[in-house]
Amino acid sequence: MTQTESLVKILLIHGPNLQLLGKRQPEIYGRQTLEDINSHLREFALGKGVELKTFQSNYEGAIVTEIGDNINWADGILINPGAYTHTSIAIQDALSAVNLPVIEIHLSNIYARDDFRHHSYVSPVAIGVISGFGAFSYDLALEAMVQKLKENPVE
Amino acid sequence: MTQTESLVKILLIHGPNLQLLGKRQPEIYGRQTLEDINSHLREFALGKGVELKTFQSNYEGAIVTEIGDNINWADGILINPGAYTHTSIAIQDALSAVNLPVIEIHLSNIYARDDFRHHSYVSPVAIGVISGFGAFSYDLALEAMVQKLKENPVE
Amino acid sequence: MTQTESLVKILLIHGPNLQLLGKRQPEIYGRQTLEDINSHLREFALGKGVELKTFQSNYEGAIVTEIGDNINWADGILINPGAYTHTSIAIQDALSAVNLPVIEIHLSNIYARDDFRHHSYVSPVAIGVISGFGAFSYDLALEAMVQKLKENPVE
Amino acid sequence: MTQTESLVKILLIHGPNLQLLGKRQPEIYGRQTLEDINSHLREFALGKGVELKTFQSNYEGAIVTEIGDNINWADGILINPGAYTHTSIAIQDALSAVNLPVIEIHLSNIYARDDFRHHSYVSPVAIGVISGFGAFSYDLALEAMVQKLKENPVE
Amino acid sequence: MTQTESLVKILLIHGPNLQLLGKRQPEIYGRQTLEDINSHLREFALGKGVELKTFQSNYEGAIVTEIGDNINWADGILINPGAYTHTSIAIQDALSAVNLPVIEIHLSNIYARDDFRHHSYVSPVAIGVISGFGAFSYDLALEAMVQKLKENPVE
Amino acid sequence: MTQTESLVKILLIHGPNLQLLGKRQPEIYGRQTLEDINSHLREFALGKGVELKTFQSNYEGAIVTEIGDNINWADGILINPGAYTHTSIAIQDALSAVNLPVIEIHLSNIYARDDFRHHSYVSPVAIGVISGFGAFSYDLALEAMVQKLKENPVE
Amino acid sequence: MTQTESLVKILLIHGPNLQLLGKRQPEIYGRQTLEDINSHLREFALGKGVELKTFQSNYEGAIVTEIGDNINWADGILINPGAYTHTSIAIQDALSAVNLPVIEIHLSNIYARDDFRHHSYVSPVAIGVISGFGAFSYDLALEAMVQKLKENPVE
Amino acid sequence: MTQTESLVKILLIHGPNLQLLGKRQPEIYGRQTLEDINSHLREFALGKGVELKTFQSNYEGAIVTEIGDNINWADGILINPGAYTHTSIAIQDALSAVNLPVIEIHLSNIYARDDFRHHSYVSPVAIGVISGFGAFSYDLALEAMVQKLKENPVE
Amino acid sequence: MTQTESLVKILLIHGPNLQLLGKRQPEIYGRQTLEDINSHLREFALGKGVELKTFQSNYEGAIVTEIGDNINWADGILINPGAYTHTSIAIQDALSAVNLPVIEIHLSNIYARDDFRHHSYVSPVAIGVISGFGAFSYDLALEAMVQKLKENPVE
Amino acid sequence: MTQTESLVKILLIHGPNLQLLGKRQPEIYGRQTLEDINSHLREFALGKGVELKTFQSNYEGAIVTEIGDNINWADGILINPGAYTHTSIAIQDALSAVNLPVIEIHLSNIYARDDFRHHSYVSPVAIGVISGFGAFSYDLALEAMVQKLKENPVE
Amino acid sequence: MTQTESLVKILLIHGPNLQLLGKRQPEIYGRQTLEDINSHLREFALGKGVELKTFQSNYEGAIVTEIGDNINWADGILINPGAYTHTSIAIQDALSAVNLPVIEIHLSNIYARDDFRHHSYVSPVAIGVISGFGAFSYDLALEAMVQKLKENPVE
Amino acid sequence: MTQTESLVKILLIHGPNLQLLGKRQPEIYGRQTLEDINSHLREFALGKGVELKTFQSNYEGAIVTEIGDNINWADGILINPGAYTHTSIAIQDALSAVNLPVIEIHLSNIYARDDFRHHSYVSPVAIGVISGFGAFSYDLALEAMVQKLKENPVE
Repeated sequence: MTQTESLVKILLIHGPNLQLLGKRQPEIYGRQTLEDINSHLREFALGKGVELKTFQSNYEGAIVTEIGDNINWADGILINPGAYTHTSIAIQDALSAVNLPVIEIHLSNIYARDDFRHHSYVSPVAIGVISGFGAFSYDLALEAMVQKLKENPVE
Repeated sequence: MTQTESLVKILLIHGPNLQLLGKRQPEIYGRQTLEDINSHLREFALGKGVELKTFQSNYEGAIVTEIGDNINWADGILINPGAYTHTSIAIQDALSAVNLPVIEIHLSNIYARDDFRHHSYVSPVAIGVISGFGAFSYDLALEAMVQKLKENPVE
Repeated sequence: MTQTESLVKILLIHGPNLQLLGKRQPEIYGRQTLEDINSHLREFALGKGVELKTFQSNYEGAIVTEIGDNINWADGILINPGAYTHTSIAIQDALSAVNLPVIEIHLSNIYARDDFRHHSYVSPVAIGVISGFGAFSYDLALEAMVQKLKENPVE
Repeated sequence: MTQTESLVKILLIHGPNLQLLGKRQPEIYGRQTLEDINSHLREFALGKGVELKTFQSNYEGAIVTEIGDNINWADGILINPGAYTHTSIAIQDALSAVNLPVIEIHLSNIYARDDFRHHSYVSPVAIGVISGFGAFSYDLALEAMVQKLKENPVE
Repeated sequence: MTQTESLVKILLIHGPNLQLLGKRQPEIYGRQTLEDINSHLREFALGKGVELKTFQSNYEGAIVTEIGDNINWADGILINPGAYTHTSIAIQDALSAVNLPVIEIHLSNIYARDDFRHHSYVSPVAIGVISGFGAFSYDLALEAMVQKLKENPVE
Repeated sequence: MTQTESLVKILLIHGPNLQLLGKRQPEIYGRQTLEDINSHLREFALGKGVELKTFQSNYEGAIVTEIGDNINWADGILINPGAYTHTSIAIQDALSAVNLPVIEIHLSNIYARDDFRHHSYVSPVAIGVISGFGAFSYDLALEAMVQKLKENPVE
Repeated sequence: MTQTESLVKILLIHGPNLQLLGKRQPEIYGRQTLEDINSHLREFALGKGVELKTFQSNYEGAIVTEIGDNINWADGILINPGAYTHTSIAIQDALSAVNLPVIEIHLSNIYARDDFRHHSYVSPVAIGVISGFGAFSYDLALEAMVQKLKENPVE
Repeated sequence: MTQTESLVKILLIHGPNLQLLGKRQPEIYGRQTLEDINSHLREFALGKGVELKTFQSNYEGAIVTEIGDNINWADGILINPGAYTHTSIAIQDALSAVNLPVIEIHLSNIYARDDFRHHSYVSPVAIGVISGFGAFSYDLALEAMVQKLKENPVE
Repeated sequence: MTQTESLVKILLIHGPNLQLLGKRQPEIYGRQTLEDINSHLREFALGKGVELKTFQSNYEGAIVTEIGDNINWADGILINPGAYTHTSIAIQDALSAVNLPVIEIHLSNIYARDDFRHHSYVSPVAIGVISGFGAFSYDLALEAMVQKLKENPVE
Repeated sequence: MTQTESLVKILLIHGPNLQLLGKRQPEIYGRQTLEDINSHLREFALGKGVELKTFQSNYEGAIVTEIGDNINWADGILINPGAYTHTSIAIQDALSAVNLPVIEIHLSNIYARDDFRHHSYVSPVAIGVISGFGAFSYDLALEAMVQKLKENPVE
Repeated sequence: MTQTESLVKILLIHGPNLQLLGKRQPEIYGRQTLEDINSHLREFALGKGVELKTFQSNYEGAIVTEIGDNINWADGILINPGAYTHTSIAIQDALSAVNLPVIEIHLSNIYARDDFRHHSYVSPVAIGVISGFGAFSYDLALEAMVQKLKENPVE
Repeated sequence: MTQTESLVKILLIHGPNLQLLGKRQPEIYGRQTLEDINSHLREFALGKGVELKTFQSNYEGAIVTEIGDNINWADGILINPGAYTHTSIAIQDALSAVNLPVIEIHLSNIYARDDFRHHSYVSPVAIGVISGFGAFSYDLALEAMVQKLKENPVE
């Protein structure tokens, strides 16, 4: 087996509006763009023997497609579904269909925001949820997924 | 009038995640892909004097567009809206706008699943619903649409 | 084994008020009575190797009894529960008890009518639902049941 | 035309438990039985040129059947649906099907009792409701029906 | 005791918008004004030994005041609360405070109209309700009140 | 006083589908039929000086009638209302009307099943409820009723 | 026809608390009083050939009366119902009764405020709603009403 | 500064039906009229250096007007909104607009009465609530308001 | 500064199904297409010193993207979200993120239609709403936005 | 094996306020204290070969601890959770964790009391419920538990 | 009788987190500790001939116990249940059991806070509620209790 | 400054039933006890310059007390509230009162369990939530808290 093949493969999906990170009012929200975050995570992943593929879309349909397209590639999925968390049964169905471990991520603590943000269609098909730690939520989720895959290693 | 023109024209729409049919765990879910189903139905339709156009998308917007684009072509619409059944008012509006007979189709019996799957935004604008018979639901729906159009023939 | 014994056996139950079919305002609703429908279906069934027994009652209790009485006779049940669809847990229990494949039928599209007609106590114990095609709903249901029993043949 | 034929015909239906009137704790609830009430009303009706047919049953199915059976006989229906007021969609459907003027009657003021007694499935298909005047509710309803039929006389 | 004193005294209250009766689209709604109805009822009442005082207001406060002001005059209250039926707890409180028999009246069948018209704050403090018989509802209510007061005569 | 007359009299009512006990999949659900249970209980009752009358029906109306018919015979009522527990206001009314001590019985623990099985229309008119002990629920209920009647003996 | 008669006639109603405009904390809320707004609008209206009658009341009953009194005068009604938006069925009934085009106006965006301010009893009988533009909402509404009446001119 | 000017000024508002205090069934409810209570409170207030103005109305509109009219006179408002507690958003808006400290008062403990009396539209704009102590509730509220104004004295 | 730069810049977004305007049953709905409306508005805008950019999509994701892409170009956003009004939290988030004044527009009066059309996810982030005036709603909204931007001019 | 060891072991838990039994208004509620009940039950248990350990606490936490502490001692648990029935998920979790047969007991019939007393967090983890028979409820529960453990004897 | 015995006895209970009064951010919340408040109240009480016993606990069970333990000592109970107001049925039951006059106290106006703080399990068993006046709420409550006990003196 | 003082101080609270970890069915749930977890975490913390104090209780009151007692000691709080997550407003209030950063932890993914486990009273006062990763949830939470405190260092 070659080294490339031996890497654990994780798909990281960012939902709608996350393309704006670092691009609006940087003096307030910081200058860290989504690509900055992705780069950091890909490197952090590699250090743990993980190949991380990142994807962002504002389209529910594109996210559904991306999940389905990686049915055979990914060993696990990290997803920050953004606003689709609360409205997309289609994403729930896609995640159920591919039958992989899923971790749900939120930058802010959605349970402390508007009532309609407390319900997630993703949670019932996720192994766990990490919510409220800003970009550091992704780091925690990546660690958790690696830990999870170590318990149930992919052969 | 040529024979081609005289065919009844039906548009069949498949919603999100249905592109995965036959592509995941075929030893469990069977090897019949969406294209297999579509081919079978197109042939079955032809035998009844029906030209069947098929369409699949994971995008709500693409389904809305497809419905609007066929306003003058189709005599009736068969639709398996998948997860959009429960969330898309846009698809309801599109179906209302084109003002054609619609039959709603589901592979599984949605009324026996999670509560949030019992409500359909499509049903109020459909003449009828067929739910729970796997791929055979499409055959039944096609028969029902032909029967319906015979009662109210297209001139 | 004699030929009679080899027939698949299906029980068709009509719920309350269906005895009025063809008997009120025939110039509007048509002159096809419930018996006309039953005759047609029995013949249609026979052509598919199915013995169809039909039953109508306005009594919830009679429907419950009929279901229980056919526990050993029937291979499957077709039921148009009429108004009892929405109110009868007793019929749900009877259908659960006999543990046979059930198809739920409605002449009109109940999901496009009053809110209180959207919920069915029968659906959770049915394999599928056909709703909205008038008397043709019965033909479709019979086909669907035969298809179902072919997949899981009775020995 | 004979005199009998020229009488207006009204069907009066009493729902469940009303057979007990006058039969329990007569020292408290009075000794007037359901038959006493019916006799009084039949005579009262006759004085107004009305033939009154009375019917009582504890069976929802029997009430549904009785309504359907009088589709051609009755010019109007008076109904005290008792507890079925709140639970029977089948009776609503029967009353809708025969398409006759209906008046809903209650001995007690149901709107001043338990919450679950405030909703009536009969009201949406009734021209009016009289509730709370004991046996005198029937007299008022009979007057109201005669008044109604005078406005829209039966030919 | 003089004859005037011996008359039973009933207060009839008409709620908001009833001043428009007979004043809008008379070719459709009839030319019978509220005063025509009141005159007819006062005469009808007199024939039964009842002095009828009538009152109409579009003001919730005026109706509350009128009820309180008649605490010592009236033997019973007939009230068509119009739209205040569904919104006025103040009228409920006024009726409770005077502790007289109350009959609630509606021209149309409120139980067959919008959902928000099904609930009445007056019903819990009324002995009965008459709904749906147009202006004849008042005649029926007057009869019912007289019947009620005969059972529990005022000394 | 003769011995027969001195026996306490208890009516035991079984609701819908209970006629199937011991008749379906006996290898799983056991071979004890409803009649076996009734025989056992009648004997058990006799040992405690109780005459037990048993009744089963799938008809709500028949149960309502049976309750009313025993208004003068019974000293107490044991009832397993089956599915009518959750839907029958008519049975509640019948039990209220006869004004006897009632114990509600369930074979399974209804409070651990579907949400719609948690609500009982019988409970508000029962002195107590026993739920979840299979056929032994009847034994416990009989003991409880005897205990109850001893506290408030019938003269 | 004289010029005065040829003017379109519009009634503008201001609901409760609007008499305080410009009278509280003028340094914050501005010094423009309700009369200032009315003057401006009357002049603006005249420029469009519209006679504008203005009315303000804190009394639901007064608003109901005003609407009814103008049944024959007005060609259209502009109404800012203030808090009665959310509680007054009587105003809805008055607006229905006069059967004129109605436009609902709010100074603030009620849909962005407390939940109980999202529902309006006026909206179902209005042709449109304008909400959130301060006093300029009235200008927009006046334009919209004129546009509407031009489409369906009053003869 | 003259002595009159130096008095703290408090407006006391009584809502609907409170004009009946002491006027109905005095042998039960006592002979203390609203004016008796007001006199006592005015005197009690004076002893604390408070000028108390009292106001009662059955009209929601009159209460709204009174609040607005005292925007410059009052230092605080005591209000027993009676039934309007539960239905009047207009009173809430008036209290918000004048931006003064408000104490809500109830004679009975509204939280121990009907469910619809548990919600108050006044509470969210009040500093506190006193409920359940009969006429003594007013004394307590007056004390509380004086205490409050002492903490934040009016200059 | 050049003239082009000095124009106020407004983005106008049309949601799903609006591409069909003027294209279905023109004899009923009129022949005015979306492009006709856009042309008229662009010209109307120019007269007010406004550069209007128009955009239509059936895709929720495309609308989200368009909003984000114009974060630096637009001074204000006019949006007719069509069916996404009621379902898209993603569009709400996009509008929040760009932090510009937003006006919500509807051709029909959504508050007078189905219940599920009364709720808008856009309203909480809009300064105002204009609903019910057909294509003229856009003209009103444009005027309102210009008025708004005049109050808070862009530097 | 010694005899002591061979006894079935049952833990009986009494929830909050039950320490007051027999201690308040004994002339009304009787003089039977909780200790009297416990003594009677321990003796009754012994006669059936059962060692009964009893425990009462007003502390939710103490009940949770007691359940956990007996994970290895008890063969079954009888629990009258008092008010914690309706509020304690912690007790539900404790009972789930120890994975023993549980019977839920109530002195009064909780299903005939306030609505908030109809829901039990204990029921979903209990095999059965006995409610309404006063102290005799404990006797019945003990019998039921013994019967249960006989079916599934502890080895 | 000694003087001590003749004192009215009142129990004052403080619920969870109230031990923190004066101990957190004293520069903001003030330095008045719970003991300061208790001292002041005990003295204030003594001046009115009242012996005040004070109790604080963070444990629901301890509060339940304290209430029960004082069944014979106290003439009345003042309680600030803190967060247990909204969650503790056990405290409601304890207060019901001891059958003493209860006054519910809150420092802040709970009806102006989160929705889940509007409901109180204590209110239905209290004679009155005082909410929103900070530590002065206790003074008012003590006065109200003394007033109450004077009306119904303890012998 | 000494080294001890320079350590960041974090309080870790375990709610009800967590004392059972590793003590029930170790062959299934593993042999790792709560003390094992605590030891591991204390060591892990020390490596990051954190002094970790751990606490477990089955008593809501004890948890409330512990939080308050550490108001001056702790720099942050990690809490797995167990079942009190869903029922304890008192714990929410305690966490609000101490005004420290809080992270909520769950071993299982509560959002994928029973509906009543989806709501948390702790979340609105937490900076973030980590749910579903077994004992590893604690590690992640510790990392997140350290990261948080680094951003806002304690002086």
